[in-house]
Amino acid sequence: MADWYDENFHDKSRFGVKYTSVLFQGRSEFQEITVLETETFGRVLVLDKVFMTSEFDEHFYHEMITHPVLTTAPSIERVLVIGGGDGGTVREVLTYPEVQSVTMVEIDRQVVEVSKRYLSTIGTAWDDPRLQVIFADGIDYAKKAEVEPYDVILLDGCDPVGPAVGLFTESFYRGCARLLKERGVFGLQSESAVFQRDILAQIGQTLAAIFPKVYPYFGPVPIYASGSWSWLYATREVDPLAVNGERAARQEKRCKYYNADIHRAAFVVPNALRKLFDNGRVKSPA
Amino acid sequence: MADWYDENFHDKSRFGVKYTSVLFQGRSEFQEITVLETETFGRVLVLDKVFMTSEFDEHFYHEMITHPVLTTAPSIERVLVIGGGDGGTVREVLTYPEVQSVTMVEIDRQVVEVSKRYLSTIGTAWDDPRLQVIFADGIDYAKKAEVEPYDVILLDGCDPVGPAVGLFTESFYRGCARLLKERGVFGLQSESAVFQRDILAQIGQTLAAIFPKVYPYFGPVPIYASGSWSWLYATREVDPLAVNGERAARQEKRCKYYNADIHRAAFVVPNALRKLFDNGRVKSPA
Repeated sequence: MADWYDENFHDKSRFGVKYTSVLFQGRSEFQEITVLETETFGRVLVLDKVFMTSEFDEHFYHEMITHPVLTTAPSIERVLVIGGGDGGTVREVLTYPEVQSVTMVEIDRQVVEVSKRYLSTIGTAWDDPRLQVIFADGIDYAKKAEVEPYDVILLDGCDPVGPAVGLFTESFYRGCARLLKERGVFGLQSESAVFQRDILAQIGQTLAAIFPKVYPYFGPVPIYASGSWSWLYATREVDPLAVNGERAARQEKRCKYYNADIHRAAFVVPNALRKLFDNGRVKSPA
Repeated sequence: MADWYDENFHDKSRFGVKYTSVLFQGRSEFQEITVLETETFGRVLVLDKVFMTSEFDEHFYHEMITHPVLTTAPSIERVLVIGGGDGGTVREVLTYPEVQSVTMVEIDRQVVEVSKRYLSTIGTAWDDPRLQVIFADGIDYAKKAEVEPYDVILLDGCDPVGPAVGLFTESFYRGCARLLKERGVFGLQSESAVFQRDILAQIGQTLAAIFPKVYPYFGPVPIYASGSWSWLYATREVDPLAVNGERAARQEKRCKYYNADIHRAAFVVPNALRKLFDNGRVKSPA
């Protein structure tokens, strides 16, 4: 018996999928976790009634949060992923043989457990010996962890509501900058560039107070509000368009969305957003 | 009293907007016409329960069906628009001072009348003396009209269901080719590249039997299924990336989405679609 499951976006628009069964529903210490079985999107992960990922369209998001950063960061030996409990981002990161260790800091152990059980097509790299999963608050980790700095930090977090609000603050970003090597790159999702332009701008501004160079980039994510998403690429000195040809060529053999041309196209800023950015870069705060 | 209006996409997914009132609902000779008032999308035009356009997001679609063609076609004096009854496409076309005449062939007079009355922010060029509106079947027109050939033909039609099926046939495209100057360009919408890849491929193949060069291009349209859309650029010899700098510069002063960099980015083919296309071009039929 099929029925609709809708994500209600601020009570203004909604996106729904027809689901055939609820594979899991439960409440962790942090959030409500739901896994739906659908015909079109395959299995869908929902946290607090917001679609997080689906088997059908997860490649858009996971490839785009990963490869624009991993093909341009000068070194990619040590990678930190904050959030990303479904396992899709660390899977993409671990496709690079140059990556020697990935630390994933996820606050919600149950999201990982549910994902391992129900979303095994997404999290295919849990057993990679280079991966270490730490169940902890990413905000605390960024501020306090005494570890060697990372080449790359990817923030694969939720929308800025509830417990995830702290993931959008300057003090958290300063923690990330603290953990990042001088020539490192910090990449993060920054919401819909159509519906949440103000949030994108605000995150960009906050980052630009810390990193000399912050660039937005864009791509489709059908299951997210508006179907278009944005990410930010923050760095002290790396050029986000200087794609490592060898790394990109390897990804082009396996990716569904990403290739080196898509990489460059993703950094093009739509006309109405240009005033937020200066030559494709977030304007530094006055 | 607000309620939801959903577009049900093949009973697999749906997209809904919260509407505050139904401004118009009626049945023409061809289809059911609805205009909703919404908070987020402004006024929304719905034909046969499928979202056609909205005040909030219409610029994505209308800019992208128009400017990639109009900034690259060598001559743009005579333009034919088939469909496009809301008036958004002819509005964009008429922003070019080089355009001397636009013929719009729309099958459904009532769509134009309803759009003039309720969507006046979209159709702002109805009174332009260069515009001639003909209420007729675009298929007949393409096959039989005895007119001077056009520099540009834009097909701004519905999905390939019901009366619009004929807009996706080889015989119709041959009619368009007949009406197109040797160095002309034919542009058309070609459905979602995420959900309807097979239709995009099929339209591309059909066109490639007639036009030596057929290129897909892509962009966001939040109100359409999947939020991502595709268009096809069909021509005998024109280079779709040879943007006329002067024309593009003028558009960059007024467009919300389009600019010359977006133009080039739009023609980049996502990795999984590359096998459908050869170096960004539809492969000619065997």
